[in-house]
Amino acid sequence: MIRNKKQLIGNGKTERTKNARELVLHSLEVALKAVDPKTIVKNKLTLTGSLLEVDKYSFDIDKFTHLYVVGGGKAAGPMSEGLEEILGTNIDEGTVNIPHGSSHKTKIIKLYEASHPLPDQASMEGTKRILNIAEKAQKDDLVICLITGGGSSLMSLPRDGVSLKEKQELTSALLKSGATINEINSVRKHLSSFKGGWLAKKACPATVLNIILSDVVGDPLDTIASGPTVPDQTTFTQAKRVLEKYELWSKSPSSIQKILEDGERGLIQETPKPKDSAFEKVHNVVVGNNRTATLAAYQSLKSYGLNTVLLTATMEGQAKCVGGILASIANEIEVSGNPLRKPAAVVIGGETTVRVVGKGLGGRNQELVLAASLHLKNNLDCAVVVASIGTDGVDGPTDAAGALVDCKTYSRATELGLIPESFLAENDSYNFFSKLGDLIFTGKTGTNVNDISIIVAL
Amino acid sequence: MIRNKKQLIGNGKTERTKNARELVLHSLEVALKAVDPKTIVKNKLTLTGSLLEVDKYSFDIDKFTHLYVVGGGKAAGPMSEGLEEILGTNIDEGTVNIPHGSSHKTKIIKLYEASHPLPDQASMEGTKRILNIAEKAQKDDLVICLITGGGSSLMSLPRDGVSLKEKQELTSALLKSGATINEINSVRKHLSSFKGGWLAKKACPATVLNIILSDVVGDPLDTIASGPTVPDQTTFTQAKRVLEKYELWSKSPSSIQKILEDGERGLIQETPKPKDSAFEKVHNVVVGNNRTATLAAYQSLKSYGLNTVLLTATMEGQAKCVGGILASIANEIEVSGNPLRKPAAVVIGGETTVRVVGKGLGGRNQELVLAASLHLKNNLDCAVVVASIGTDGVDGPTDAAGALVDCKTYSRATELGLIPESFLAENDSYNFFSKLGDLIFTGKTGTNVNDISIIVAL
Repeated sequence: MIRNKKQLIGNGKTERTKNARELVLHSLEVALKAVDPKTIVKNKLTLTGSLLEVDKYSFDIDKFTHLYVVGGGKAAGPMSEGLEEILGTNIDEGTVNIPHGSSHKTKIIKLYEASHPLPDQASMEGTKRILNIAEKAQKDDLVICLITGGGSSLMSLPRDGVSLKEKQELTSALLKSGATINEINSVRKHLSSFKGGWLAKKACPATVLNIILSDVVGDPLDTIASGPTVPDQTTFTQAKRVLEKYELWSKSPSSIQKILEDGERGLIQETPKPKDSAFEKVHNVVVGNNRTATLAAYQSLKSYGLNTVLLTATMEGQAKCVGGILASIANEIEVSGNPLRKPAAVVIGGETTVRVVGKGLGGRNQELVLAASLHLKNNLDCAVVVASIGTDGVDGPTDAAGALVDCKTYSRATELGLIPESFLAENDSYNFFSKLGDLIFTGKTGTNVNDISIIVAL
Repeated sequence: MIRNKKQLIGNGKTERTKNARELVLHSLEVALKAVDPKTIVKNKLTLTGSLLEVDKYSFDIDKFTHLYVVGGGKAAGPMSEGLEEILGTNIDEGTVNIPHGSSHKTKIIKLYEASHPLPDQASMEGTKRILNIAEKAQKDDLVICLITGGGSSLMSLPRDGVSLKEKQELTSALLKSGATINEINSVRKHLSSFKGGWLAKKACPATVLNIILSDVVGDPLDTIASGPTVPDQTTFTQAKRVLEKYELWSKSPSSIQKILEDGERGLIQETPKPKDSAFEKVHNVVVGNNRTATLAAYQSLKSYGLNTVLLTATMEGQAKCVGGILASIANEIEVSGNPLRKPAAVVIGGETTVRVVGKGLGGRNQELVLAASLHLKNNLDCAVVVASIGTDGVDGPTDAAGALVDCKTYSRATELGLIPESFLAENDSYNFFSKLGDLIFTGKTGTNVNDISIIVAL
């Protein structure tokens, strides 16, 4: 699955470094397999007789009159396939929105192709179908909702009176304004018929089981796919204040102003709040997240006899900074045997950011390890590797998932006349690593649980 | 020694959080004691009969004709006291430069008070005395050199022809130019009669033992006090190029231009290089560094039954970024029991930086934990504390050594009407923590091995 191994043969590295690189690549491969959306659904949900079990919940599906499936997101296609393999003809009806051009096959659940990362008319059509199902579900029905990253766009339906275009333009302006993601979401949820708990509210009084594959660091349920089944903590007034704060209120179309003002006056309904009884029968289960992937890598490295820790599954911050820190941990293993004695591995999950100032080509994972290479101690005996990939297989606007460095990368680059500091300053990590043959290619994986970084020191 | 405990009583925290705060403060106190300069010298050097031992080296002092002591730095006073307690009248003569206003007492070693952080005439006088001793030392003599942070300023002697003022002004200009510390040092060393290996060169053919207390992350020997006993890898040509690169060459005084040009033409001697035989009898021993302090904290926390790791002793990067990462590790302990199960502690050493954009008052350690407080999960049951201090007891231009936060700090602050994000944006961590009573005060400790950060989760 992962391509890079070819370059390892005969590139003058010591046997130990070669082994370290292979161990890193192998454990990344194991991690990616663990978050395959279809596999996750099939592993986490079990049907024994009529008993459907997932996490701490169990449902006797024979006791429900209807079993509906709804949802959407980039990985919702394979999740639907997995769900059909488990539940088969127990499913009465379903509509799940997936990206255009997907090639998934389901028998009962209708897969509805829509647009990502910006919603289109098809997103709205599919979302209406989903809400139709939710609204017809009754007290004795079970609605299973599949939610994954990309769901915000694939399941989009503005409130009556606002056009898709108006909502999109405002969202774009907010994204550029410096508003925080929570501020942006408070506006989006108040302009939506679906996000911010509306799906759950409309499915009430049915029982709702949400199967969530999280693409947001730390799994904030109200953020993943904009939380269609999760109470909204914000108000119309707050949403309006956000627009005022970023000087977008007077520029907003009158349709949007009207909704927020009507909402403020209590003329239209607020988004569903935590105390709403609609959530009493709603069960949210995160079946897969970054920790699923990083724990799989951890187990794999441990099985090879390495002293291994999972440091965190919620690492955030500037890629450059995080890269330096990973190098300092790698160096500490070499110098003092802390936090682990060699052979050692440290697994880190999360998602970093890059402040682009240069004109180069790269991604956050490639930038992270390039920064690490500047700090890795290059003593004679070292066999340290640091790698980082995006689990979706796409790191920035490149065809690589990430890259890997070892303690000789810096000297190898300078021998080739490459100045690592300059490539970093230009945010040009892709061209740096393509010259060294140290990019990692996975292809698009069809899943996304953020990024995985691994340190191995042998 | 550490003040903060008072505020702990009756501030509404749970018993566990109180315990976590006390454990953190206690282990910081243990760490500081471990890097007391006098204690370190007395612990690391032993005299048994006539056998002086330190690290992997041993010297029969009876076999030397003379035993001289030289050196300088902010902690060189107490180190001199410690050395006299060990060697007593075995010392024939000594001159050690210490900061103005120190109150250390030695019998044989002359403590010469000079200026820091900018050198003065006294620095030059004292440095001349040190070089006099080095130059009179012969083949059968032992020169013990005490080197600590601040030594660059306290032991300063420009090359003949350059005035102290000229060298200082150029250094200031370089510091503002964006030049790296290595670039600046290449210039400084080529304009010095002392730095960049010259002390060792002048002490040749005597045996030289350098006792180093490191104040630079990662202990690069050529950087600590500008490496007076360590070969210089750079050349006159490189030093000149640095000035050209930052457009300072034409602005430099003719005296400095002359030295660098004469040096380039081989008319005056290069700084001593690695192959110089002068270094054959030079032994550099780092007796104390950040790892000494962080390992002491680690041992202390472990002795209380906490699952503890030393993550790294060379953490660098933006304080804000590092704070976020420490919070993500603390959260991971709470959520998944990785990298350690509770009760757990993580010890981190190094030195972060702050990019000052606001108008507030603060220091890197205070900013680090303020950033951490924004990211710490505040679940009902949490008892997580993150603290960070500068081991010199001075964090930025404040009277505090650092500060500590717990998982309730954020909510406690907002209840008081303080907006943590705003204080962080204004680099105003000191005023934030003084309002909360969560500053840590140690007073000036007289030592400096960078910073210590500790996470405790009970």
